[in-house]
Amino acid sequence: MIGRRLREDPKDAKTISHKFLVRGGYVRPVSAGIFSLLPIAKRIIAKIEAIVREEMNAVDGQEVLMPVVLPAELWKESGRFETVGPELLRFKDRNDKDMLLGMTHEEAIVHLVRSEVNSYKQLPVMAYQIQTKYRDEARPRAGLIRVREFTMKDAYSFHTSQECLEKYYQRVHDAYVRIYARVGLKNVVSIRANSGMMGGSISHEFMSVADCGEDTIFLSPDGSYKANREIAVSGLKFEKTEAELPLEKVETPHMKTIDEVAGFLNVKPEQTGKAVFYSTADNKLVFAMIRGDFEVNEMKLQAVLQTPSLAFANDRQILDAGAVPGFASPVGIDPSKCIIVVDKSVEGTANLVVGANEEGYHYKNFNYGRDLANVTVADIAMVRDGDPCPITGEPLLMKRGIEVGNIFQLGTKYSKPMKCEYLDENGKSQPMIMGCYGIGIGRTMASVIEDSHDDYGPVWPMSIAPYQIQLCALNPDKGGAREQADALYEALTKAGVEVL
Amino acid sequence: MIGRRLREDPKDAKTISHKFLVRGGYVRPVSAGIFSLLPIAKRIIAKIEAIVREEMNAVDGQEVLMPVVLPAELWKESGRFETVGPELLRFKDRNDKDMLLGMTHEEAIVHLVRSEVNSYKQLPVMAYQIQTKYRDEARPRAGLIRVREFTMKDAYSFHTSQECLEKYYQRVHDAYVRIYARVGLKNVVSIRANSGMMGGSISHEFMSVADCGEDTIFLSPDGSYKANREIAVSGLKFEKTEAELPLEKVETPHMKTIDEVAGFLNVKPEQTGKAVFYSTADNKLVFAMIRGDFEVNEMKLQAVLQTPSLAFANDRQILDAGAVPGFASPVGIDPSKCIIVVDKSVEGTANLVVGANEEGYHYKNFNYGRDLANVTVADIAMVRDGDPCPITGEPLLMKRGIEVGNIFQLGTKYSKPMKCEYLDENGKSQPMIMGCYGIGIGRTMASVIEDSHDDYGPVWPMSIAPYQIQLCALNPDKGGAREQADALYEALTKAGVEVL
Repeated sequence: MIGRRLREDPKDAKTISHKFLVRGGYVRPVSAGIFSLLPIAKRIIAKIEAIVREEMNAVDGQEVLMPVVLPAELWKESGRFETVGPELLRFKDRNDKDMLLGMTHEEAIVHLVRSEVNSYKQLPVMAYQIQTKYRDEARPRAGLIRVREFTMKDAYSFHTSQECLEKYYQRVHDAYVRIYARVGLKNVVSIRANSGMMGGSISHEFMSVADCGEDTIFLSPDGSYKANREIAVSGLKFEKTEAELPLEKVETPHMKTIDEVAGFLNVKPEQTGKAVFYSTADNKLVFAMIRGDFEVNEMKLQAVLQTPSLAFANDRQILDAGAVPGFASPVGIDPSKCIIVVDKSVEGTANLVVGANEEGYHYKNFNYGRDLANVTVADIAMVRDGDPCPITGEPLLMKRGIEVGNIFQLGTKYSKPMKCEYLDENGKSQPMIMGCYGIGIGRTMASVIEDSHDDYGPVWPMSIAPYQIQLCALNPDKGGAREQADALYEALTKAGVEVL
Repeated sequence: MIGRRLREDPKDAKTISHKFLVRGGYVRPVSAGIFSLLPIAKRIIAKIEAIVREEMNAVDGQEVLMPVVLPAELWKESGRFETVGPELLRFKDRNDKDMLLGMTHEEAIVHLVRSEVNSYKQLPVMAYQIQTKYRDEARPRAGLIRVREFTMKDAYSFHTSQECLEKYYQRVHDAYVRIYARVGLKNVVSIRANSGMMGGSISHEFMSVADCGEDTIFLSPDGSYKANREIAVSGLKFEKTEAELPLEKVETPHMKTIDEVAGFLNVKPEQTGKAVFYSTADNKLVFAMIRGDFEVNEMKLQAVLQTPSLAFANDRQILDAGAVPGFASPVGIDPSKCIIVVDKSVEGTANLVVGANEEGYHYKNFNYGRDLANVTVADIAMVRDGDPCPITGEPLLMKRGIEVGNIFQLGTKYSKPMKCEYLDENGKSQPMIMGCYGIGIGRTMASVIEDSHDDYGPVWPMSIAPYQIQLCALNPDKGGAREQADALYEALTKAGVEVL
């Protein structure tokens, strides 16, 4: 069998699955984030694919196969050719035509469905494929967890109404729960998530809880709340309990960080407010104010500002707005020169230490409402381990997870610009309402290893084990051992058992 | 079911399979030579793949999965990054690294096997995959027959000796015969072929005989001889039967083509000799002389000259050699200025009309041996329909075929430059002896249609039919028709029959 067992961990391997996949002769790297599957892994993958296929067929999915290489014109129609970054691999074919390697297939399926489906009578319909995809990751890592080339099950559903989509979305959600259970993943949670570049409103990520996961998620102990860090909210309430004291300028020589200032003035970080400057996609300066014991959640801030991206502002931009970097102040900031957003923690805490907009000075006793008012106040804080659950109030658990699947309610994000329409019962043209549903096949296999292994290697759940039995004839030439082994092999194989 | 039936033939469709695949809702074009498979085609393809997989497993194949996107460095090791033309799609990834889309995987499998196999005890071994490939064809055509993106079963075997390779090669050959029989192709012939860019010596193409085929093949009626036009030889013998007459210069005003000259001088084309000029890969001029009733077979000429490619020479090159285009003559040609190759037809025919190397003049009665001698004489002629079989002498049948598979004895073409070596019984390092074996999956499906259809569409062999039964309840609400149909559906499905 092709695939040597290796004694040493690969140098770049940090996760258990990466180590065992390479050491056990399952995969071999060909280039960064690009792997060959060896025979034993191919068998496991085939079993995962079969389970996925069964469950997709069970929710009325129709299997198709779309191309890996796609014409750019489709992605120009949806607008993503321009908006997606360098992870979308673009190239020209020999006739100088813009092409790309599909990393997801919304455009391709819309192109297909809009020519095949044109009446409400044909809806709803769901198509799926299990196919090779490519994403030109800047930093592939962790073996099969974050790769450039991967096999994905991607599915797309089309509906005449949001209600129909939501009902079907729940069916696929349940199918996913069955898939992960059947492949043997023990701790997968589905959480509400930011939909990122997919667009649409509601989406869920299926997270396999694992220490090596790239995503941070918050779970309430009783399961009533689950969310990705990007959108997680806590149940924290902020209320001013102290009387407001007069604003007072104090000298804080060379003290710039929250810890330095708090230590020097002998206050806790939660008695300080910090200013963080960002620049929006259209280069507007953002002044975000948050309590010193919190960090800004850029996804939340982006949502508040309705901007597709945020970057830290540079000193030049900050100085142009009349603010002093390191000592920027909510007091006297010119609202015509920047967008000001204040976190609820700052609104609800009295007498904060904040910058004085002067090198070496801070203010004590800043109070929102008195010293700054009438600006946007919102929850832009990152939830912290142990913050109260917004539903139960119990401390939230911070966990790491591997995203093994995701589902999205896309609405008309693709069907509108790409004119994927049907005639309704009144003969009127309407855009189809879409959902999409992905599962990373290789990543699922790697997650099973993270979940299920001992010191020597993966412990495969029987449902996806490459073989159910390994038969080993010790001393085959002695006492008829070989004949017995052969007979046993035949009997087991005949009974449908896979024997190595 | 996704996939409309269309009434009209697609405009660009010339072959039966292309028309029926599109009209029947099997495939849809996404870009030139790039198709999506609709659900009904996906089912057929899955069945063909299952048959191929079974037969590959039966010859001890181990299924793997190599990447679609490959690092150029592997193809630089083998030398093919430079030698293969623009059909190899090259691009740079975001880190400016040279990458390519795999159109075949010799390099990738050698990269894998050289790290996994190092002893004669592990050999022979065969790995195969069923995978998406991309070939940037200049002129995709005929639906799934010549595409840019395609699914291929490619297999690679590794051996310690040529004998072992040959034995295994025959096993795969027989497996291929079984595969084509099982998918229902009625007329597949395996023929000796030129190996092209794959290198190596012995290779076979599996041709499904069909009028729309791109390849021309010659078959003897009793099957004793089968060959691709590129390497076909006839049983023609040439012998001078007339006495040699004196060379005589004659005026042939404005007569340039063989037909013009033959008509003007009232001789048959087979009484003339024509000169064809080529330029080799390293820009050497070639003067090829052949009888007027034959065409030069460039593949044979390439083999004689041991050059990887030939192009027609331009007038400039011809004039530089002192020859007059259109009237070039084998009489007095300067052998230091070009490579002269004479076909056996010219050597064996007396008193030919040839050019006089002077505008408006030809010679009568050219005789090789007397008027030109001591140059390379070889069979460089294209076989013609009806030429005698080289084995039986019976007239050869000229047919067209679709290449649905090919097998190659590669030898050490890849293992030597890429150092894919094993330790032999004496502990000495040796390059592995390789074979490779391909089947185009989509092309096989299209060939079945060419083979098996009626006026209304494909007639699928039961082995690969998307469904075995289509059940249609007419008037379902009348007389319990729906209940009967449902019961029948259940019973058939339970019995393992696929019912639409």
